[in-house]
Amino acid sequence: MELLYEGKGKKIFSTTNPQEIRAFFKDDLTAFNAQKRGKESQKGALNCQITSALFELLHTKGIKTHYIRQLNDNEILCHKVQIIPIEVVVRNVATGSLTKRLGIPEGQVLHKTLIEFYYKNDSLGDPLINDEHAILLQCVQDVQELEVLRKQARAINTALKSFFLQKNLKLIDFKLEFGKDSAQNIILADEITPDSCRFWDKESNEKLDKDRFRQGLGDVKMAYQEVLKRILQ
Amino acid sequence: MELLYEGKGKKIFSTTNPQEIRAFFKDDLTAFNAQKRGKESQKGALNCQITSALFELLHTKGIKTHYIRQLNDNEILCHKVQIIPIEVVVRNVATGSLTKRLGIPEGQVLHKTLIEFYYKNDSLGDPLINDEHAILLQCVQDVQELEVLRKQARAINTALKSFFLQKNLKLIDFKLEFGKDSAQNIILADEITPDSCRFWDKESNEKLDKDRFRQGLGDVKMAYQEVLKRILQ
Repeated sequence: MELLYEGKGKKIFSTTNPQEIRAFFKDDLTAFNAQKRGKESQKGALNCQITSALFELLHTKGIKTHYIRQLNDNEILCHKVQIIPIEVVVRNVATGSLTKRLGIPEGQVLHKTLIEFYYKNDSLGDPLINDEHAILLQCVQDVQELEVLRKQARAINTALKSFFLQKNLKLIDFKLEFGKDSAQNIILADEITPDSCRFWDKESNEKLDKDRFRQGLGDVKMAYQEVLKRILQ
Repeated sequence: MELLYEGKGKKIFSTTNPQEIRAFFKDDLTAFNAQKRGKESQKGALNCQITSALFELLHTKGIKTHYIRQLNDNEILCHKVQIIPIEVVVRNVATGSLTKRLGIPEGQVLHKTLIEFYYKNDSLGDPLINDEHAILLQCVQDVQELEVLRKQARAINTALKSFFLQKNLKLIDFKLEFGKDSAQNIILADEITPDSCRFWDKESNEKLDKDRFRQGLGDVKMAYQEVLKRILQ
């Protein structure tokens, strides 16, 4: 198996089927565009299980993803897609960069779910872009493809938000990546994990996601274990 | 006359008519969100004349602005508007923050004119925003108002670009501000000057705008005088 791509949280390998890849979840943790780095044993396995459970949940809701099945503790089998170089960020509550950039108070519930596009480019620090930038940078062909991203992101948010609320978790915000499959359909790719989402306990607002690493709050693994436990409950 | 507002380049005064204001053009120069400051004698008067000439030109093209007439060397009389807190940036050629932020090569002619919205907020450093941010921040009421801004910005660009080309100047990019008049019409406000535009000589690409101050190239006043001379030619 050939290593096709290594990101901050996963390694992507080829398989004997040219239409499929294996995604291996690493224990590495990075924050602030990889200026802060760490490692947490079992984090990769926890994220692999969490992503598998959530992609399976989305399939039951009629949302297409690249996920086929979990292969082992740290690996999932996926349809090969051409990743669209846009990080689609969905926000239900203001926190993190949104509060700093636009002065919106921390914790403010957003009247309407906010969708943001960031240009997936590490050397530029993943800058925020508007629709015209996305087309200029040839991330997508046209504004219709951006509308597909927005529509799917909203549908995924609706499904996940109500699922997590049943588990006493508030889905604060999350980052999605999409890709084009061999038939040029735009489908959800990448992962859904506490690395890519913010989860707050419904009652205590305790952070159960990568902000524990970003902000040096400790108990990173316990938080990820708690998220998995509640998902499987 | 009461001072209603003082910005980086102008002071706005009330008049005896509550529907009209006087805009006084200052000699102050600022760059990089006012981290660099300077002064250039006669700059205010040059900008006052340039804005007057360009707003009169736009009126002949059917584009509505807040401008009524020039009152004296440094002042114009304008309809009072409620400023929309969005800086509308129109780009024909990549330079400045666009090249740094998105890695687009300096001087690249943009296949399609690019419109960007920045949240007009000095303490936040005028951050780039997308359509959903503009509505969340209540800069505008809805996406239709953003479409009006985009449409007017494109019409103004078309008019100015061809006018300046006749004057052997390339209109590289510029910043516009719009306001709502007493009838809630969205009309062009603020100024159009070498403080708010980038002009490059058509043949030599010499910079004839505030980049001479930003980049410490010298001859700031000569550049502004040259722009006015060509406009009046």
